[in-house]
Amino acid sequence: MEKKNCGLGKKIYLELAPPTEEDARGDRERLLDGLNEQGYKAFLPLKVLRNLYPFCREAQWKFTAVLGWQGEKWEVLALEEGDTTQRQYGAAVDLGSTTIMMKIIDLNTGEEKAFQNIFNPQIPYGEEILSRIFYTKDQPEHLKELQRLTAEGVNHLLRLCQEECGIAPDECLSMTVAGNTTMTHFFLGLYPWPVFETPFAPVSKGGEFISGRELGIEIPGYVYTFPAAANYLGGDIISGLLEAGFYKREELSVFIDIGTNGELVAGNKEFLLAGAGAAGPALEGGISQYGMRASSGAVDGVTISAGNLRIHTIGEGRPRGICGSGIVELLAEMFLEGWVDASGRFNEGVSERILRVSGTQDPEKEELAVCYAWEDESEQGEKLVFTQSDVQEFIRTKAAAHTMVEYLLEEFGLEGEQIGQFYLAGGFGTHLELEAAITIGIYPDLPRDKFCILGNASLKGAVRLLKNLEALGETERIAEEITYLQFGNAGDFLEKMHRAQFLPYTDLEQYPTVKEKLAAREAKRQKCGRVQ
Amino acid sequence: MEKKNCGLGKKIYLELAPPTEEDARGDRERLLDGLNEQGYKAFLPLKVLRNLYPFCREAQWKFTAVLGWQGEKWEVLALEEGDTTQRQYGAAVDLGSTTIMMKIIDLNTGEEKAFQNIFNPQIPYGEEILSRIFYTKDQPEHLKELQRLTAEGVNHLLRLCQEECGIAPDECLSMTVAGNTTMTHFFLGLYPWPVFETPFAPVSKGGEFISGRELGIEIPGYVYTFPAAANYLGGDIISGLLEAGFYKREELSVFIDIGTNGELVAGNKEFLLAGAGAAGPALEGGISQYGMRASSGAVDGVTISAGNLRIHTIGEGRPRGICGSGIVELLAEMFLEGWVDASGRFNEGVSERILRVSGTQDPEKEELAVCYAWEDESEQGEKLVFTQSDVQEFIRTKAAAHTMVEYLLEEFGLEGEQIGQFYLAGGFGTHLELEAAITIGIYPDLPRDKFCILGNASLKGAVRLLKNLEALGETERIAEEITYLQFGNAGDFLEKMHRAQFLPYTDLEQYPTVKEKLAAREAKRQKCGRVQ
Repeated sequence: MEKKNCGLGKKIYLELAPPTEEDARGDRERLLDGLNEQGYKAFLPLKVLRNLYPFCREAQWKFTAVLGWQGEKWEVLALEEGDTTQRQYGAAVDLGSTTIMMKIIDLNTGEEKAFQNIFNPQIPYGEEILSRIFYTKDQPEHLKELQRLTAEGVNHLLRLCQEECGIAPDECLSMTVAGNTTMTHFFLGLYPWPVFETPFAPVSKGGEFISGRELGIEIPGYVYTFPAAANYLGGDIISGLLEAGFYKREELSVFIDIGTNGELVAGNKEFLLAGAGAAGPALEGGISQYGMRASSGAVDGVTISAGNLRIHTIGEGRPRGICGSGIVELLAEMFLEGWVDASGRFNEGVSERILRVSGTQDPEKEELAVCYAWEDESEQGEKLVFTQSDVQEFIRTKAAAHTMVEYLLEEFGLEGEQIGQFYLAGGFGTHLELEAAITIGIYPDLPRDKFCILGNASLKGAVRLLKNLEALGETERIAEEITYLQFGNAGDFLEKMHRAQFLPYTDLEQYPTVKEKLAAREAKRQKCGRVQ
Repeated sequence: MEKKNCGLGKKIYLELAPPTEEDARGDRERLLDGLNEQGYKAFLPLKVLRNLYPFCREAQWKFTAVLGWQGEKWEVLALEEGDTTQRQYGAAVDLGSTTIMMKIIDLNTGEEKAFQNIFNPQIPYGEEILSRIFYTKDQPEHLKELQRLTAEGVNHLLRLCQEECGIAPDECLSMTVAGNTTMTHFFLGLYPWPVFETPFAPVSKGGEFISGRELGIEIPGYVYTFPAAANYLGGDIISGLLEAGFYKREELSVFIDIGTNGELVAGNKEFLLAGAGAAGPALEGGISQYGMRASSGAVDGVTISAGNLRIHTIGEGRPRGICGSGIVELLAEMFLEGWVDASGRFNEGVSERILRVSGTQDPEKEELAVCYAWEDESEQGEKLVFTQSDVQEFIRTKAAAHTMVEYLLEEFGLEGEQIGQFYLAGGFGTHLELEAAITIGIYPDLPRDKFCILGNASLKGAVRLLKNLEALGETERIAEEITYLQFGNAGDFLEKMHRAQFLPYTDLEQYPTVKEKLAAREAKRQKCGRVQ
């Protein structure tokens, strides 16, 4: 019986009967038979084959076979004297365009042994993915360079993890990598241009096992790249869907990942329907003038109470800018406190934090803005502001996100109530952020227990697959079975989006909890008196 | 439906639909789907994957995929613009310890395009296999050297074939290699010592696809080594059995290959029983002082008529020695003409060719010998002789061969008449040689139409597999299903062998055609008068 209820790497301790005249099988056959008896159909590469003698005899036929899944069979990556099965690990990677994250997993216990992240070393070649793609256009040497840099980044993470937990790269028998289609192209060294050029047929949709050695990754085994379902629905989303797991349930659920792009998948065990599109500037990890990455010094939390605006910064230090989750909370709080109206326009005079600054587009023309912080502690220095244009741009972004959800639900002819679970991947990792996101109308106003915050679903899915070979078939099935809709093609998409450019929505009745909150805040303000 | 009725290499011409917005599959998936539709489940190595763009587009999606069977799937070895399917070839190799032979096969037509052979480049490291094994014992560098030399020999053959037929090594998509267990070890770079050391468990029994590149063989695809059933029953025999084909028939048949060793396999589609053993000095390609290899200048045919001994030499030039088939004919003719008696002893005086020479073992002690030729044309120079000791040694060899056949038949409880076919592999390629071999009692005296002379069955089997992937499963089944007997273990083997040390056998009644021939020759001599 073939074993699949194990990770993508596996160590098997064998105690084999030494050869006798009655049983004169070859060393190779003796080893392969031994593995086969335990359910592992394997093969030996030439390198290991050549070391069988005298290894097996010196080890007195008691040794550990180090296996890596190669796509069809197990490859015997190495042989180790005695029983070394206590140490078997794997690496899971979330290959983001901004951040690359890695977890080292104990394949015996499923435990996480290390977690590290670095900025994607491709960033110097372009903040935005498209700049990096242009950098490699018709420049095979540049593509090689980015492939090499990406591999080096992954190797760097392996070493950072080694420092954290003492597990060496060569103890990682397998690696799973979840990245969007372009990231996967860079990682494999495939020309990424067609990913962004009509008719959007990439070189490969991934879903392959490639030897680490060939890719320049310092692990002995194979690297699996999650398959894409379509250009804009990459391996990172498939990985997230694997983590969410609703593809195997009766109940209809929705998976939403709003990052640099917005991706949505709805379905159950019978079908999966997906849509994706560039959601304008990112909600999280944005690149626009008003936002910064969720890194040290970024404002990631905002509350306004009794007219006082308070912030939280990542790393607890001085604020340097505001990141996606900070923006969502800022906007939600300002809306609930009446600092901005339903169309996002500032109410001048309602707080001294609202002031006039030189315009973003045209410095000659002043515009309103909120000062959410100062760079220095004295609150005298450079003001950190979020302008009217920033608000409008962000509302367009959230409208796009909202519309995608709405459009997808309509495609199914479903009301929000009929949906089992809303899985939220990517940003909005806390309950507070979820509340804020609903307040400004990114998500529909549904009972909160319908929302399931996955966090970094892509990395979690990569871990899940790494630990369980059986999930491989499911991964492939997800990627194959998704039906893909291009939202841009939908006739009334723009009209719908226009209706969504209000906080939380044109029709407040669709957001009863937001309506309640507004009333509660108003009552509180009445009670406490408005602070100027 | 998976296609297997093709060779181990295959070119597929594809005309693929270019990508559109409606069909935005990746280039890789488009290619693999195209191959799948034609029944070829394939994968792309990174090298080819990286070249998909812009290749597919530049070729306007009309190109040829070059496939090589990798053991589990087809590997796309390369892509060629346009339709190049007219040129698809493979190489079949008989890896003998003395000679390496190669045929280049057209995988479209099955035609043989070239046939070349060279001496095994290992020979300088030992005429006998055992010397070569000793050369590598505890010397990994020496093993590497012999592996490299063997690969270079194969590459040399590829180039010789290219000179003959214009087909370049890189046009050979696949290679099959049939060699005995030791030769396969040397070829793969595996330590051969355990092949000859008790309990005779080799490092590997072969039966693997290994990339040519890894072995240093200049073909783009994979090299298959025929599997051994046991140490002494190597891939060359399995290949020969594939060629003989009786493993799929009802009728019981026997396969005999008497070369450096003697191998016998009897069976039908229900079972295969084999035996092998070092048959003493070789019948063909021997290494003893009295024989030489079947190469230019070797006496390979002998007739004695009206007291005149005539010879034939390979290459038609001056004789330099006598090879296996020459010895068999010499002995048969001398026996029929009464120059030797049934126990192999020379009848001194019956011909002036029979003379006294200084003994082989002890130069002081004269012994009888036959002068079968002179080195120079004047018949005055150095005499080429076959001595009494040579005859005795050869008779022991032929007795071993005879006994193996006899023993095997007894194991089955079979009389010769119950046997469908006797397949003769290796030497004795002509009807005359077969007659001589029966005359001296190597083979039983059966109706001649029961004998099927296969010639180089090992090379033929390698060609057969190369042309037909379906034969791969059969090859593996043969190797797995053979039950192996070690003759040396049989209690009465020596006694049986003793009985076989007569020409043709202790009991002439078992050789009725030989008895007839003896009578006919005697009658002829009576009629013509004996020539002194």
